[in-house]
Amino acid sequence: MVNISIIGAGSVVFSTSFIRDLCVTKSLWGSKITLMDISKERLNMVHNLAVRYMRETKADLKIRTTMNRKEALEDAEFVLCTVKVGGYQPMEMERKIAERYGYYRGIGDRVCDYYGGFGAYHQLRFFLDLARDMEDACPDAWLIETANPVFEGTTLISRETKIKVIGVCHGHFGYKKIAKTLGLRLEEVGVEIAGFNHCVWMTHFLYRGGDAYPLLDEWIEKKSKKYWESKEFLEGLPWETEQMSPAAVDMYRQFGLFPIGDTIRSVSPWWYHVNLATKKKWFGPTGGFDSEIGWSIYLKRREKKLKRMQRLYEDSSASLTKEFPPVMSGEQHIPLIDSIANDKERILQLNIPNRGAISGIPDDVVVEIPTVVSGRGIRGIQVGALPKRLMMYVMIPRMLRMERILQAFTEGDRKSLVLMLMDDPRTESYEKAEALVDELLAQPWNTEAAHHYR
Amino acid sequence: MVNISIIGAGSVVFSTSFIRDLCVTKSLWGSKITLMDISKERLNMVHNLAVRYMRETKADLKIRTTMNRKEALEDAEFVLCTVKVGGYQPMEMERKIAERYGYYRGIGDRVCDYYGGFGAYHQLRFFLDLARDMEDACPDAWLIETANPVFEGTTLISRETKIKVIGVCHGHFGYKKIAKTLGLRLEEVGVEIAGFNHCVWMTHFLYRGGDAYPLLDEWIEKKSKKYWESKEFLEGLPWETEQMSPAAVDMYRQFGLFPIGDTIRSVSPWWYHVNLATKKKWFGPTGGFDSEIGWSIYLKRREKKLKRMQRLYEDSSASLTKEFPPVMSGEQHIPLIDSIANDKERILQLNIPNRGAISGIPDDVVVEIPTVVSGRGIRGIQVGALPKRLMMYVMIPRMLRMERILQAFTEGDRKSLVLMLMDDPRTESYEKAEALVDELLAQPWNTEAAHHYR
Repeated sequence: MVNISIIGAGSVVFSTSFIRDLCVTKSLWGSKITLMDISKERLNMVHNLAVRYMRETKADLKIRTTMNRKEALEDAEFVLCTVKVGGYQPMEMERKIAERYGYYRGIGDRVCDYYGGFGAYHQLRFFLDLARDMEDACPDAWLIETANPVFEGTTLISRETKIKVIGVCHGHFGYKKIAKTLGLRLEEVGVEIAGFNHCVWMTHFLYRGGDAYPLLDEWIEKKSKKYWESKEFLEGLPWETEQMSPAAVDMYRQFGLFPIGDTIRSVSPWWYHVNLATKKKWFGPTGGFDSEIGWSIYLKRREKKLKRMQRLYEDSSASLTKEFPPVMSGEQHIPLIDSIANDKERILQLNIPNRGAISGIPDDVVVEIPTVVSGRGIRGIQVGALPKRLMMYVMIPRMLRMERILQAFTEGDRKSLVLMLMDDPRTESYEKAEALVDELLAQPWNTEAAHHYR
Repeated sequence: MVNISIIGAGSVVFSTSFIRDLCVTKSLWGSKITLMDISKERLNMVHNLAVRYMRETKADLKIRTTMNRKEALEDAEFVLCTVKVGGYQPMEMERKIAERYGYYRGIGDRVCDYYGGFGAYHQLRFFLDLARDMEDACPDAWLIETANPVFEGTTLISRETKIKVIGVCHGHFGYKKIAKTLGLRLEEVGVEIAGFNHCVWMTHFLYRGGDAYPLLDEWIEKKSKKYWESKEFLEGLPWETEQMSPAAVDMYRQFGLFPIGDTIRSVSPWWYHVNLATKKKWFGPTGGFDSEIGWSIYLKRREKKLKRMQRLYEDSSASLTKEFPPVMSGEQHIPLIDSIANDKERILQLNIPNRGAISGIPDDVVVEIPTVVSGRGIRGIQVGALPKRLMMYVMIPRMLRMERILQAFTEGDRKSLVLMLMDDPRTESYEKAEALVDELLAQPWNTEAAHHYR
C-alpha cells in the first residue's frame, strides 16, 4: 500500500496502462493513486476510465484527481512524470521554421527535436520545478521519469536536486523483435542491453545459453535482403520495422554492437537522414519513425487511440477489460514500484547514475542499464567496457550533446544554442544559425525560454 | 654533466638552437651530446655547426654523431625528439588529393593535416618505436617530445610505455604579443596558460598585480579595429599577427578565455576556414599560417633559413656567434634539462598527464600547464575548472579527436579514419569519405599505414 502520484495523468494512453498494471498487481492494492494534470477535461476522462477499470477488475485502489501539483505531491511515495509541456504543436511549428533554414525535419535529435536539443527547455524547466517541489513536499519519494528527454532530464535532476530519480523507458524491448525475426523462442533468449536512454546497445545476446550473435550475423548475411523485400518489412509500422532495418544492420557494422529500439532513429549517423529518399533506403518505405511519412503515421494512430479512449469514456456501458485485458502491459513502472514497496527482487532496465557501471562514463551521468530492484532500492549491474569505436563515435558524442544541452540550460546560454547548431553538418554559417535560434526563441510559446537564454 | 641524445638532429634550426642553449648553460658543460639522424649530410652539417659554436663560446661539451638510433639511446639521460617522418612532401601531396575531394587545405587539424589527424600515423609509429627502444636502452631517461602531434604523441607514449615523456612547445609565449600590443611592460605581466598543446587558453592575465583582462577588453573595444588596419597587422607574418587577429578576439568572445599561440589556428571553429576570403577576414591578409598564402610564406622562410645555415656550414671562417649571439633562445628544452639535472627549481609550461590539474579531464590525458621542475622531477600546478562553454565546445571535442586518432592508431582501424572524416562539415557522403581514405592510403609513402589500417 503506497501513495502514487501521476503528474501529467492526462496522458491517456500512459495513465490507463499504469492503472491497468496497478489493477493487475494485487500486492499494490490498497494504494492511493493521485491523478494530476492541468487539463480538467483529460483528467476527468482518465479518472472515469480508471475507476471503471478498477471496478471491472475488482481491484482495490483509492483514486483521486487534482489540478494542484503541490497537493498531488503531499505524502507521495512514488511520483510518475509523463508530462509533455505544451504538446506537439510548438514542435511542429518549430520544425517548419527550421526547414525554411535548410534543416530537413528540423534540428535536434538528428531530425526530430522532441528529444533533447533546443525544444528541451520546457521539459527540463518542468522536471526541475517538479523535483524542487518534491524536495519540499515529499523529499523521500522516488521520481519515476518517463517523459523525454529522459537522458538529459534524469541527469539534470540527479545532479541538481536531492530527489531519487529513475528514468523508465520501453525501447530496450526491441530485442524481442530481433528474437522474433530470427525465429528464436523468446523464453530462451538472454540479453544484456546498455547505454544511454535512446542510445542502447545489445552487449550480450544469448540463445539457449550460447552466444546468439552468430545467428544474427547469419541472418544478416543470408536472410536480411529477403526480409527487406518482405511484406512484413515493407508494410510494417516504422517503429516496428526499424529494429531489423538496413540502418540497424549498418550501425552494428559501424559500431560493433547491435542497436536496440529508438537508438536506431535517435543516434543513427546524420548521413542516413539527409532526405526522404536516403531515409527510405535505410529505414524502409516510410523513411522511419521521424520522416514526414513515419511521423504522420504516428500522429494519426495517436489520434485514433485518443478517439478510441474518448468513445470508451463516453460509453459508460462499454467493457474496458474487454478492450484492455487485465494483464500486465509490459511497461516497467508498476513492477518497479512493486519491487521497491514490497521488496520483490526483480531485474529491470532502468536509467540511473552510472557510478562505474559502464567504463569511461562519469559517475554522475545517467546510463540505461540492467538493475536489481528490491526493498533495498536500485542497484546497477556492472556492464564494463563498450567497444571503443562505439564509445568514440556514438556514446561520447551523445554524452557531450547532453552536457551541452544541460550547460546551455543551467547557464541560460544562448551562444551555446548557436554553437550546438554549428555542429550540425547542415549549418552553413554562424549568422544563419544565430538567426534561426533568434527566430525560434521569438515564437510566442518561447517567451520564457527567450528570457532564459540570453 | 648529463647525456643528451637528439633524435632527428638533422632538424637544423631546432638542433642549432639546442646547441646554442647548451653552450650558454654553463651548469650543463661537460655533458655528452649525441646527434642522431638518418641523413648523413644533415648530420654532418649540424655537427660542424655545433662544434664550431662550442669552440667560439669556449663551451665544454662532448658532441658525437650517429645514424644508429639504438647506439644514440645507450646511456642517454635525456632524449630530445624533433623528428618529422618523411618531411613535408607527402603532406602536401595528400593535401592536393583531399582538395580534389572538396576539402580546402586538406583534412585533419581543420585545414592542415600536419598535426594529428590522418597524417599522424608515421609520427605516432615513430614515437612509439622510439619509446620502446628507450625502454630497452635507457628506461630511466626522460623523453622530451617536441615533434608534433605533441598532444596525441605524449598521451600515447605515457599510456603505452613506461617512459617518462614530456611535451615541450613554445606556442604559449604568444602572450608576449598580447602584452606588447597592449603596451604593457613584459616584466610586470603575469599569466597562467592551460589546455592541451595547440589548444591553450589564458586562464589568468595580470598586470602589476591586478587583473589585466579589462585592459584587453578595452583594447578590443577601442583599439582593435585600428590595429587591424595598421601596417603591423596587415604586413606582419601570419604566425605573428594571429595572436591579436579578429579570430582570436572572436574565440575569446565565444569561449570566455583568450586563446594563445597556435590555438588560434589549430582549434578555431570550422567556419573561419571555409575559403581564403573567409580566412582573410579572420586572420588578416595572409589568411593565417595555414592558408595557401601563409603556408607558402612559412615554407619559403624555412628554405631561406636552411640556405643560411648551409652557407654558414660551407663558410668555415664565418662567425656563428655573430649570426646567433650566445644568449638563450627562449626554448624551454635546455632549461628543463638543467632544472632536472642540477635541481634548479623553475616554472615551465609543459605537457604532462593531467592527474587532476584541469577539472573534468581524465588523469591519463596529457595537458599543457605550468609545472614546477626541479631535481625532484616535474609537478603540475593545479589549474582548476575552465569555463564550461570552452570545455563543451573546444576542450572535450579536441580531446575526443585525440582519443579517436589514438583508437584508430592502436586498433589499426580504417573505419575509424572514415568515421572521423564524417564529422568534417565538408564531408558529403560516407562513400566519398571512404574513397578519400582509400586513395590516401594507396599512396606509395603510405604502404605501411595502409597495411596497418585495415
